[in-house]
Amino acid sequence: MNIVLLLSDDFISPSRAVIKDERRKNHINLVLNVSPLDTIKIGVLNGKTGQGTIVNITQECIILDILLNSNPPPALPLTLLFALSRPKTFKKVLQAATALGIKQMVAFNTWKVDKSYWSSPVLSDESIREQFILGLEQSGDTVLPAITFHRRFKPFVEDELEKLIFGRTPLVAHPGAVNECPRVLKSPVTLCLGPEGGFTDYEIGMLEQHHMTPVTIGDHILRTEFALCVLAGRLF
Amino acid sequence: MNIVLLLSDDFISPSRAVIKDERRKNHINLVLNVSPLDTIKIGVLNGKTGQGTIVNITQECIILDILLNSNPPPALPLTLLFALSRPKTFKKVLQAATALGIKQMVAFNTWKVDKSYWSSPVLSDESIREQFILGLEQSGDTVLPAITFHRRFKPFVEDELEKLIFGRTPLVAHPGAVNECPRVLKSPVTLCLGPEGGFTDYEIGMLEQHHMTPVTIGDHILRTEFALCVLAGRLF
Repeated sequence: MNIVLLLSDDFISPSRAVIKDERRKNHINLVLNVSPLDTIKIGVLNGKTGQGTIVNITQECIILDILLNSNPPPALPLTLLFALSRPKTFKKVLQAATALGIKQMVAFNTWKVDKSYWSSPVLSDESIREQFILGLEQSGDTVLPAITFHRRFKPFVEDELEKLIFGRTPLVAHPGAVNECPRVLKSPVTLCLGPEGGFTDYEIGMLEQHHMTPVTIGDHILRTEFALCVLAGRLF
Repeated sequence: MNIVLLLSDDFISPSRAVIKDERRKNHINLVLNVSPLDTIKIGVLNGKTGQGTIVNITQECIILDILLNSNPPPALPLTLLFALSRPKTFKKVLQAATALGIKQMVAFNTWKVDKSYWSSPVLSDESIREQFILGLEQSGDTVLPAITFHRRFKPFVEDELEKLIFGRTPLVAHPGAVNECPRVLKSPVTLCLGPEGGFTDYEIGMLEQHHMTPVTIGDHILRTEFALCVLAGRLF
């Protein structure tokens, strides 16, 4: 946690916040290990960042005086489309994507996505928000990303993709691709990642027909969340 | 697991191997779900890659006919120096670094490395080898990396660093750095990553004195394993 995120409910006046939940209290008390008058990095969800000065620490709560004087780090101009992954990986991808500064995510179905993944509790609004918050706290960002879901591949590609790639460089990471992934793009990117085991030939063909360029990042096959980071490092 | 790794002990003749352990048997039976005459991707530890044709599957073992006709993917020309991280993260860093194709790693102590990390069971040869194997199996590589440890920061920097950066571009990732991390280097790199909470001013000063250039990859603070992937994507 490199920033303590405050919600509007935490504020008792424009410059004073009270933290009551165990998770953030424990972090401030046990990890940051602060005393009154010490300052910690804070941010307001979907708002500015700044400093919180510890006013008082009790069993029940931590009272902070808040100074908001900075903007959160700039968003990464990357829209992430990814095949719905197994629940554990899904949580990691959300956290990694959020920490990278990605603000728009789309999870979709493919042939190799196990049907059971679509009924996993990790797809609940609450679980998704939890991963987003963890990613923001890690990276020092405040701006919540958004995610949408498409349970049918063909309608997704035929009806939704055009909007998602408009004005952007549309790339699909594909281990068998002929083209190397481009570097240091100045334009925003829409990046598509396949499932474990990859896209089928039919799927990659459909994505190509709809203007996505298959690209490779080398011969080592990486987990989705690591591939995403390598691609982010390479593209921007 | 994108490749099944074979050890010399698995071979009963130059072209036939027998797999007896539950982990690989389960992967072949349950994940790959193969039958006799099907082929799977295999590699020999520290050797070539190729195909294994299923000869027979029994309760006790899986017999494969082996054809070795390819080289493993090229190593990433990056030597990774990193502050010893908490045990869970340490395992992730080893797996990520191995999957990226890194072959030389060095873990060292800094002021913000918790002393308890140095007595964690994840530092045992057996646990380290397990993470390396998982990384190789994920990425389709066969060549085991190596790791060394330095429990004292000052002697490490003064006595060891020069050898580790000779003929290489020496970079230290540091959130406060003035310089952006360079891109698409043609030379090998020695990359140094700090602990959670970063290097102290004294430590970063010592690293600079010993020719390491502090560089930044932006305002989002990433977990070590994700920062490593972003840097690898950016540097090569």
